[in-house]
Order: sequence, then C-alpha cells, then structure tokens
Amino acid sequence: MTEYTLIGKNVPQVDGRAKITGGARFTDDLKLEGLLCGKLLRSPHAHARILDIDTSRAKKLKGVRAVITGHDTARVKYGIFTFTKDQYFLPTDKVRYIGEEVAAVAAVDEEVAEEALDLIRVEYETLPAVFDPEEAMRPGAPRIHDQVDPLVDEFIKYNVGVYGKREYGDVEEGFKQSDCVRRESFRTQSVNHLTLEPYGIVARYDTYANKVEVWCPNQAPFQKMRALANLLELPLNQVIIRKVAIGGAFGGRSETFPADLAACLLSKLTMRPVKIRLNREETFLLRQKHPVIIDVGLGVKRDGTIMAIDIKFTADGGAYISTGPIATGFPFTIVEAIYRTPNIRYESFEVYTNRPVCGAMRGHGGQQMAYAMDSMLDTVAEEIGMDPVDIRLKNAMKGGERLPSDSYVRSCGFAECIEKAGDRIGWREKHGKRNFRGVGMGCAPMISGFNMGFRTGSSAFIKFNEDAEATLITGLIDCGQGNETMAVQIASEILGIPMGNIRIICADTELTPSDPGNYAMSSTFVSGNAVKAAAEDARRQILEIAANRLEISPGDLELKEGRVRVKGDPEKGMSIKEAIRDGFRSRPVMGRGYYMPNLDLQTGWVTGKLTGQRTGAYTFGAVTAEVEVDPETGTVRVLKAVGAQDVGFALNPMAVEGQNEGSLSLGQGQALYEKIYWDRGLMLNPNFLDYQPPLATDMPVMETVIVEPIDQDGPFGAKEATETTNIAIVPAILNAIYDATGVRIRELPATPEKILEGIQQKKRREDG
Amino acid sequence: MTEYTLIGKNVPQVDGRAKITGGARFTDDLKLEGLLCGKLLRSPHAHARILDIDTSRAKKLKGVRAVITGHDTARVKYGIFTFTKDQYFLPTDKVRYIGEEVAAVAAVDEEVAEEALDLIRVEYETLPAVFDPEEAMRPGAPRIHDQVDPLVDEFIKYNVGVYGKREYGDVEEGFKQSDCVRRESFRTQSVNHLTLEPYGIVARYDTYANKVEVWCPNQAPFQKMRALANLLELPLNQVIIRKVAIGGAFGGRSETFPADLAACLLSKLTMRPVKIRLNREETFLLRQKHPVIIDVGLGVKRDGTIMAIDIKFTADGGAYISTGPIATGFPFTIVEAIYRTPNIRYESFEVYTNRPVCGAMRGHGGQQMAYAMDSMLDTVAEEIGMDPVDIRLKNAMKGGERLPSDSYVRSCGFAECIEKAGDRIGWREKHGKRNFRGVGMGCAPMISGFNMGFRTGSSAFIKFNEDAEATLITGLIDCGQGNETMAVQIASEILGIPMGNIRIICADTELTPSDPGNYAMSSTFVSGNAVKAAAEDARRQILEIAANRLEISPGDLELKEGRVRVKGDPEKGMSIKEAIRDGFRSRPVMGRGYYMPNLDLQTGWVTGKLTGQRTGAYTFGAVTAEVEVDPETGTVRVLKAVGAQDVGFALNPMAVEGQNEGSLSLGQGQALYEKIYWDRGLMLNPNFLDYQPPLATDMPVMETVIVEPIDQDGPFGAKEATETTNIAIVPAILNAIYDATGVRIRELPATPEKILEGIQQKKRREDG
Repeated sequence: MTEYTLIGKNVPQVDGRAKITGGARFTDDLKLEGLLCGKLLRSPHAHARILDIDTSRAKKLKGVRAVITGHDTARVKYGIFTFTKDQYFLPTDKVRYIGEEVAAVAAVDEEVAEEALDLIRVEYETLPAVFDPEEAMRPGAPRIHDQVDPLVDEFIKYNVGVYGKREYGDVEEGFKQSDCVRRESFRTQSVNHLTLEPYGIVARYDTYANKVEVWCPNQAPFQKMRALANLLELPLNQVIIRKVAIGGAFGGRSETFPADLAACLLSKLTMRPVKIRLNREETFLLRQKHPVIIDVGLGVKRDGTIMAIDIKFTADGGAYISTGPIATGFPFTIVEAIYRTPNIRYESFEVYTNRPVCGAMRGHGGQQMAYAMDSMLDTVAEEIGMDPVDIRLKNAMKGGERLPSDSYVRSCGFAECIEKAGDRIGWREKHGKRNFRGVGMGCAPMISGFNMGFRTGSSAFIKFNEDAEATLITGLIDCGQGNETMAVQIASEILGIPMGNIRIICADTELTPSDPGNYAMSSTFVSGNAVKAAAEDARRQILEIAANRLEISPGDLELKEGRVRVKGDPEKGMSIKEAIRDGFRSRPVMGRGYYMPNLDLQTGWVTGKLTGQRTGAYTFGAVTAEVEVDPETGTVRVLKAVGAQDVGFALNPMAVEGQNEGSLSLGQGQALYEKIYWDRGLMLNPNFLDYQPPLATDMPVMETVIVEPIDQDGPFGAKEATETTNIAIVPAILNAIYDATGVRIRELPATPEKILEGIQQKKRREDG
Repeated sequence: MTEYTLIGKNVPQVDGRAKITGGARFTDDLKLEGLLCGKLLRSPHAHARILDIDTSRAKKLKGVRAVITGHDTARVKYGIFTFTKDQYFLPTDKVRYIGEEVAAVAAVDEEVAEEALDLIRVEYETLPAVFDPEEAMRPGAPRIHDQVDPLVDEFIKYNVGVYGKREYGDVEEGFKQSDCVRRESFRTQSVNHLTLEPYGIVARYDTYANKVEVWCPNQAPFQKMRALANLLELPLNQVIIRKVAIGGAFGGRSETFPADLAACLLSKLTMRPVKIRLNREETFLLRQKHPVIIDVGLGVKRDGTIMAIDIKFTADGGAYISTGPIATGFPFTIVEAIYRTPNIRYESFEVYTNRPVCGAMRGHGGQQMAYAMDSMLDTVAEEIGMDPVDIRLKNAMKGGERLPSDSYVRSCGFAECIEKAGDRIGWREKHGKRNFRGVGMGCAPMISGFNMGFRTGSSAFIKFNEDAEATLITGLIDCGQGNETMAVQIASEILGIPMGNIRIICADTELTPSDPGNYAMSSTFVSGNAVKAAAEDARRQILEIAANRLEISPGDLELKEGRVRVKGDPEKGMSIKEAIRDGFRSRPVMGRGYYMPNLDLQTGWVTGKLTGQRTGAYTFGAVTAEVEVDPETGTVRVLKAVGAQDVGFALNPMAVEGQNEGSLSLGQGQALYEKIYWDRGLMLNPNFLDYQPPLATDMPVMETVIVEPIDQDGPFGAKEATETTNIAIVPAILNAIYDATGVRIRELPATPEKILEGIQQKKRREDG
C-alpha cells in the first residue's frame, strides 16, 4: 500500500478548537445591525379551510415592522422534484397539519413579535382529518390534496402522493422454488433528528440590489439557493447562502422551509435583517422520519439461498410529499444491494395524512427497510435451522456483482464485516442461549453519491500565497461530521504542506464553486474527490515549476514535508515556498478540480428508467449487539455493540470511529426508546425530556471495525463511513432481543411493555 | 477593428447604485458586535527623545480596555523595501515629527478613549529639529536617523535616506553640442490627497485562531497583508484584508500605518473588534506628496533637438523613507520616456526632515518632474524662437523607440495627443499674445504596471451557476476609479452574458487570488488582462461543451448575446445556459486566468541593474490650458483645459472622461491653490476650509481627447487612463500663465501674490 503522510492517520477536527472555545458562530450567534425578530403563526387545526386572515391589528402594534401571509408570497409551490411541488409556504386555501405556518411577523423584539401573532385573526372552517396511512388510503377518507401531478393522479384520490412499483425476475416463481416462505408485517414509529441546535434562519435582503443573504443550518447550500431563488423568483446569483456553523443535521436540514421564505420576505419588506429562531417544539415540527408499514415476503431454499423477496412499503408522509420519492424509493436499494436475490418485487406508497411533514433522516427509509428485512432473515433462518451469521454470509453481496437493477458493485468488504462483527461479539459462544441474554446481527448496504434527477458534481479551487500557505475553496459543507477536516487532510497530503497551512473556505454559494451538498453520503466520495483533483492540479503545477528550475522531469519529483524533492534523492530539490514564489513571477499556482461519480444519469428513482448505475460506490456494514433483558420488566440493556463497515479506506480512523459511535447510539434510540406520541395530529412530546432519547448511561460498550477493500474510485480508496451501522444496529438489537427472549418485536420501538407482553404471551403459549 | 458588444461603449459603474443609495459600506459604517473605539496618542514635538511612557493611570480608567505602546509590539521595523525599514510604529526611542504615534488605547467609547489619552504621561527630552531638506543635508544639521541600510550609510549622516544616480550618454558632451543651455531651479509644495473619506481601520483579532481580519481603505490588500503579517509576526494566511468600499485613495492608501498595527494589537489584547477612526487632521498627517527641489539643466540645438538633460532631484521625505526610492526614482522614467534625449544625468536625494512622512501620490514624483521639465522646455523654446508645440512634436517619443535605460516603447499616440490638445484649445490663434490671456501646454508619459522589486501579477477565477450567471473572483481593488466595472465589462464581453449576470468578488486576501494592487497604473493593464484570461479560459470550456453537443469544431463557434452561435449561421447553436448545465453533468466551467506584464524582473529602481523593461506599456498625454490673469490682483482663472491621452483603447469612454476630469482638477489645485502651511513641523491648515482646494466654480471647461493606438498587450488594446493629464495640467497652466503675463513661476502653487510680484518685477525691469 502507498505510504501516506497523513491519510489513514488520526487527525483532529480543524474546526474543533473554535467549537470548544465558543468561537464557532452558529446561526443564533449572528447579531447583525438592526436585526429584527421574526415569528411564525401556526395552525391549531389538523385540517381546515382558511376563510380569512386579518393582520390589520397586528400591523398596528408598536414595534411591529411587517406582517405577511401567503398573499405576500410569489405563490410558487415548493417541492424538491418538479412533479412533487405540492406545497404553498404560508397557504391561503387550507391548512393540512397542526403547526402549519399561516402568517409571519417581524418586530423589534421577541415579546412584540409574539404579541403580534396573538393579534392575527385567522378564520377557519375545520375539515375531517386523517392521521393513519392505511385509513387515509381507504375510499371515503378525507381528501388532503386535490392533485399533485398527472403521473400519480389515479392515486391522489386515495391520498397517495407517490407510488412506485418495480419487479425484477419472477417473484411468484421464486416463492415456488423456495423451501420456506414467510410473510410478516413491520411498523416503525415517528422519530425526530434531535439536532442539538434548534432550527433558525437569518436573512438579509438587499432591497436595492434585489438580492438576499441567508444564514441557516443546512446540508446543501446550492440546493437551498435553487429552492429559495425559485420561491422568491430571483436569479440564482441573487440568493446567497452563507456559511455558518451547524449543530447537527442528520437529513433534517436538507430542505427549504416556510421559515426560510418568511425570513427573506420579512427582510425584503422591512429592509432590515430578520432572524426567525424556532424553539424546540417548532424544530420537531420541521421534519420527522417516515413512520412506515412494511409487508415482507421472503422465500429461501433449505440451504439458505434467498429465492424471492416481495415488499410492500407504505410510508406516512404527513401533509406534503417532501422527500417522499426518495424515502419510498431508496429502500429498494437496500433490498437489492444487501443479499443476492434473483426475484424482487417492490411496491411503495407515500401516503398523505394530516400530520407534519416527513422527510430525509439518516438512512432515508433504509433503516426501516433493514429492520424488517433482517428481522425476517432471522425468522426464516430459524425455520430452516441455519445460523443467522451463516445465512448472511451465504447471501451477502460480493464485489464484482451486478444488482437486479443493473447497478454494479465494485469494492465490497461485506463478508469480512459479517465475520468480524460476529467474532468481536463472541457470536458462536453466545448465540442461541435464550437465557434473557442474547446476541443479534443486522446488516445494511449504503451508497456513496447518488443520482436523483438533476445533480451536479463537486468542484474546488486552490490558491496560494507566497509563503506556500494554501486556501482551499470548495462548495462542500460540514454539519459536524468532519467534512472540512477531510478536505484539508486530503489537500495537505497531496500538496505536502501541513494542514495548519491550509485555510478552507466552504459552503458559500457566492464564494465557492458548486457542490451537491451533504446528503446521499457524497461528501467524502464526491466532494473529497473534487478537492483531491484540485490539489493534484496544483501539485502538477508546482512540480512543473520546480522541474523547470531543476531541469528535471516533473515525473521524477515528489512533494513531501514542504519540499519538492527528487525521488530517490530527497536532499535534492527546493522548498515548496520557492516553487510557489517562482510561480508568482511567471504563472501562479491555481488549482481547480471537479468530480462527478460515474452514474447513469438517465436512471431515476420514480420517473425515468429504473435500471442503470446509481451510485459511485456501495458500502456494506454489519452490526452485532449483545443485550440483556429483564424478564420481570421487559427492560433491555444493550451491553455491547460492534459496528463493522467496509469504508473503502479510512482517511481518518478517529473520525470514522466517532461517526460509528454516533450511528450506533442513534440507531439504538430508535430501536428501543424514541417515539413521537400523537393525539389526532398533535405532537405530545416534542422535547428532549418527554421524547426520551438514550442517555450516556444507556450506551453499550462500542467497538468499531474498519474494513478496507480500497475502492478504485474513492479518494485514496475511501467511501462513505458508517451510515450502514446506524441502520444495521436496529435489526441487530431486535434480533438480539429475540435471541434473549424468543420474542419478535414487529413494531418499533421495542419498549419494555411490548417485550414484557411478548414474554408473557410466549409463556402462556408454552404453558398452554 | 473588431466589433465589440460592450467594450468601447459607455457603461455605468457597477457599484454606482450602492454608492448613491447609501448601500455601500465604508470602513466607518462597520458596526461589529462589541466594537471598541481606538485612539492614538501623538507626539507634540518635532524631534524628541522618549524618556518614559506611563500608561498606568490610563489603564485604570473605567471603560478602558487596553493601552499599548511600542513595548507591546513585536519591535519589527516597517518599510516598503527591505533596505528602507527605518520606522518603528509606536517608537520607544524618539519621536521624529509632530503627530507621530506613541501610544494607543481601546475603550468602550470615544469619550473614554480621549480621556485615557489625556492620562498617558510621556516624558520627552526635546532635540534640535530640522524642517528643510537643504538645511538637513548641511554638515552639523540635527541627525534624524542613525543608520538605515549599509548601502546608503555614507549619506545618512547628512540625513539622506535614499540616494540615486544614473547617467546615460555623456551629458557634458551633450551640453557642448547644444546651441542653447539653460539651468533653472523649481520647487513644489506639500500637498495632501484630500480623500473624501478620512482614514480608519477596523481590526478583529481572533485570539484563539491567532488570525486577524482587517477592513480599511487601501489600494493593495495583498501588500497590506504582507506588511501586517510582518509587523504582527503572523503567517500570511492569518492576516485577512477584507473588502470595504473606499472613498478615494490617490496613492495615499497604499501603505500600512501605525493605526493599522495599533488596531490589530488592541483587538488582540481585548479580544474584541477595534475601530480607529482618524479625523481629518490625522488623515492629513498620514502622508503628503513630496515637496521637491528640482535643478534642471537643458540643452537644445537651434532646431529644437534636445541634446542633454541634467537633473538634481531633492525630495523632502519627512521623518521616514516610506516610498522614497520610488518618489525619487520614478521621476527619471518621466524624463527618459517623454522626449528623446541622448544624454541624461539624473541624481536624486530623499532627505529626512522632522516633518510627517511623505509618500505616494498621483504621479509619484512625476508631476513635480514634469512641471520642471515642461517649464524648462518652454523657456528654451522661447530662447531659440520655436513654438512650444513644435518643440514638443520634434522631440516627442514615438512607438518602437528604445529608451536610454533600454526599456521599450511599443504603442504610442503621443504626437496625436500634442496636436489634438493644441487644436482643441485654438493654439495657433491664441498663443504668444501676452495680453493677460494665454495658452500653455504640458506633457507627460506614464506607465501601465511597473516593476519594483518582488511583485506578483494578477489572477482571477470565474465560476458559474446553472443559470449561466457568473461569479468573477479577483484580487483586484477599486478605490473609486471603476476597476470593478472594468473587470465585469471585460468578463461580460468575453463570455457574451450581460454585466448584470456577473457578480464580482474582489479585494479580499482570503477569498480572492493574488493581485498586485491599485498602483503603478496596473489595474486595467494587469488585473484587467488577468480577468480577460480567466474569461477566455471559461469561454474556451463553454465552446468545447457546445462543440461536443453540436458536433462541430469549437473554432466555428462564438459567444454572443447569451448564446453559443455557429459563426456565420447565428440561428444555429444553443443557449449558454444549456452549455453551462451540460458542463455541470460532466465537467463544470471553471475559468482561471493570470497576467504578469513582460518586465525585466532583474531591473530595480534603486538597487539592482538600472536597465531593462520596466513597464508593460507606456502611455502619453498632452494637456493644454487657457488662462486669464487679472493684472491687478494676479488671480488666475483657468478658462479651458483639454486633456488628451493615448489610453491604448478606451474600454469605457465615459469612465475615461470622468477620470480625466478628476485628473485635471487635481492638477489644477496643485498648480494654483493647494499648499500645506507649516510652523516648524506643525501643520497649520489640515482641513478643507484652510487648505483651499479648488471649488466647482473654479473648474474650467474641460475636454477629453482619447487617442487609441491599440496596445498589442493591453486588454482589448487598453492601457492606463489619464494619469498623464493630472501631471501635465500643472506645466500647462504654468506655461499658460507665462504666455499670458511673461511671468515664470518656479515655486508651486502659482498664487496671486507670486504672479502679481512677477508682473510688477517684469514691469519694473521693462520700465527700468
């Protein structure tokens, strides 16, 4: 393997110091001159026609600077795809969930803004509402939207916003050839991202120049630029998304929200910057993970060979589609990429209900799917008397395989992940004891960069000053996972200068070149590759300058430790500083780079053809968990969790480990504790105390296993890191509970009540 | 000539709207959170030893956050060349002029800061001082500096900071061959730049990251970065000069000042941003134009051929060298480049006196030199009975000539300038009447980009968004003359997209690539060429993308009116937007460009060899003025002024005209009205009222003649615009006064008193 200076080494985060010292500026830290406080008025009804909105009293209140409703907007519908534009921000026709934004005010302070909200009179006519996707799909259920898109119009009368169906092979034939076929149904709950930072936005509209600057936690500044430009009817150049420190995202910061539009419009009207700061309850309202119902049919031969999979995936999307096509389309990728399956049928429904909108959250439907899939696999394995690890190894995807949809798997360390995750938990000794202590395994694949319709690659510039310090300018964004560090580390390795001598400018739509954003696991693979290309371009120029001076071929030179050295004769050469200065006298070193994964851009997720290369690379992971269940209370304690992932190559093992531990704890929360409780569309527990995420004391001993098959296209072989383990930990825990108790929980979270009920039922069955 | 869409057309300033509406943010508009007020304590003595500085009482004052003296600095000497580092900002040994900075405070507001200054006790021992350069050079004069550089050490005992001598040909032999030899001495006064914006600086030191951001009016952010990094002992990347709107510069904003260092250090100590805002009096103290004594010897043949020039140029530099090597070296370029002269001797002295520091101001010694030179030329012309226009035409530099110093003149429209300036003023009818109305001519050459030791070219990036709007990222800086407009106009022309669709990011050392700065007339020639190169690079990529799609050679395509068109078949093609979007799916368009004029980098101004190419291009100008002199009072009224310049090609004629009118008014002020009056080193009139710059009502009818020989290296043929006319207007007015009255004024300004005295003397001579 190549000898790297920095790559593959533990490197601290470049923004760590600022975050620790309080120097990092988050959105709420921005105190612009003349800043006004913006607030949103929300619907108290789950479904109601808006008859009238009277803002006159609010407008007259001293200290109020502007009040807006949907009538003040450009009446452009929001949606992330052209065929999913189903939402007016600040609607004027009707409201579709409790908490939907109907008006906004800007005032000199928070107290005045809140008083102004109280003075706005909205006259509603309440309508029948529906809160359950299965009920919503029944004939006669209240209809939430009239029409979204002709493509799906036949479904809209049943409140189905997105429908998808794909079949590869012959599923019925596959079941016939199976020795064991099981069908079961699984349900997952509403959960929230729980970003430590509540959502907020600061907008400064320059009314004369007709442009707006925006600061907010977001995962894709260039996407937000496009969405806001569309909503505000501005050219793209006139919407500037600025960089700001971000306190967590997890998918929940990828979209554009009514607060965003409201802040921009309020700033435009008042000619002053406006901050809208959502409280925790409002932040909960922004987006949740889709609660889903998954009906799985699985057929296997006696030797464990999977013959057919039949899935019906029904997601409660809430009042608007949002990322529905992805949330219901992406789980298919989990199914086709995890275990070799000749026959697959996959049917999906994104259903409208009168609940707040669901959207992207880590795994984006994949976690729900893997929970159902890997639970089923354990069930059939038990039926045919096969060890769960063995059935996984038998069917596990390998490198060089082509998926049913014709997408190709290149690097793949899946089997090694399964084996090591098993070994580290002591699988062979511990599995199958049924003594209220058990081990379970879950698996998942993931993507690195993904095609969903129009999509750009990532691009980067690098410039230098005469002291050979570099500035890396890239559209990449860091939401806390370490992307900036990754980028600087890559540039540092390629350029042979210390990380401390590289400044990074990123995530600003005006100052930096385009980047797809921080989703679909593309930051390392796509943005990292773009940074690498820019650094290599700069290195090429440095070597050429030095080669000219040293009268030697550039190929005989290398950049190491701040010097351009003659390969094999490291004493000979010149400092990089000399080369850079030389450049300034002739042609300065200016790097540029771009990367776009080799995707089949004709392939779509809902429209377009359904086959073709969809991702730059696949990753694979296996998680094992050991649990102890209290037979008296049903309480589960996770003792240990091992997250093993094929990350291609770990650029920064310490960062991979940190990400893995975050993944495991996030999945553990969703497996065991977290759930939003509802009363007819009203959230009952939108706060940390009542929502009950896992505490530090709930955390198991965690181990990280890094598997490194080196991907040929990844930067230094790297792919995404540990998105699989946040998915796979869920079935791992559920399978461990089954191993401990013989109880199969088919509805998340696996609360003590459900487990105790299962234990008692089982006891009654065995007793009876 | 090529048909351009925008180039050569009148284009309004891109930042005009912001400036008119109050949207432009100048340094004093910056209201950062927690901003402290900084103030400077200044010496009341022209020359004194500092025995002690006691800041203890000031530090104890409520509201004072920090007090610093030179002991708190890194004790690094300032100077713009390595051999001119003669100044400690905040000195601790002695003060050398009235107003020199000895301490600084930061406090919560201006009142507290001023009170704190009063509480600082400085104990001085006054020393004998000297205020006149000729006195300062006499043995026994008070010695102001001990040693600056071994190179010039033999001169330092006579208070000479910079000495230069160069001789080409044989001057004595030249005089022998002349039919008429005259020697005269000329003196110029102290004048100030009179920027409408007083100087100020805001510094925000991030103590944790050990980096500092700086906002201040400046002409060369990358120079200021280097100077501050040196003074603060920081890496270059840790000093960030930000862009801010600038209210005039004229050379007076090219350096780094004690206020800059003080603001940075005060911010570092207080961990809060600090603003130091100089008042008008303090702004006067920053820099003045060098007052000079020029002894000229000029020998001509009877036919007007110039045979020899002998010059002794003595500049009062004030207490520190500053730009002394340029101020005393550059005038030589004026002499050698204006009239063909086989034999030149040029000796120069920059002399220390106990006055505030002199530095760059428009023309940088050239205006003073041209005043003397062109006054002398009229004198010898009269002696040999030749018309001033004819003697200029006879000796005027032509294109294709090589100067004595071996620098080459390429494009040259000098003769055309002389002829047209003469014609437009009605020279042949009006000259030589001696009836208190007269016409005069002055001439000057100028440079476009210049080598003064280590110097970078300019560089630029261009990026796009999918709507084919572009962002131009360049280090270029605009001090009000329209450089941003020039850059956007060039990019727009090359890319075929409207100027309104191009955003410019400039003059920020962190965000933009390197640029030499706004001096030596390099913005259009150097920075403009870099922008052009970047735009051409982007255009090449756009054409390649379109050529691929259209299956045609890129050479058969052109960019016009937002489309890539097939040459000769403009209906065929595609929109630029389509091409840009195509690029995002394969390789996005990312332009980069660089320009460095073809200079002999071994050639220096003081050190190094004295011959070689010094500038990318020479410009030439001629100014004619018509004046009326009141014989009773000596008052001069300028009736008309014609500024004719070879600008290569006028990219934006409206901007050239605006610059020319500014140039003429600036020169007129210096010829007739402006002067700083002194009382032993104390400025007596540092304010607009007492300094008496020309008023709008003093302005003559002004005409601009644009001569366009098209320079082969300039962007679209362009060179610098109208720096010659600000120089040439001075001798034009003085020669016109002579033509009107027969009075030769050899000391500027030509006040009514001097003219009246001349008229009376002449009358006495004629009468007697």
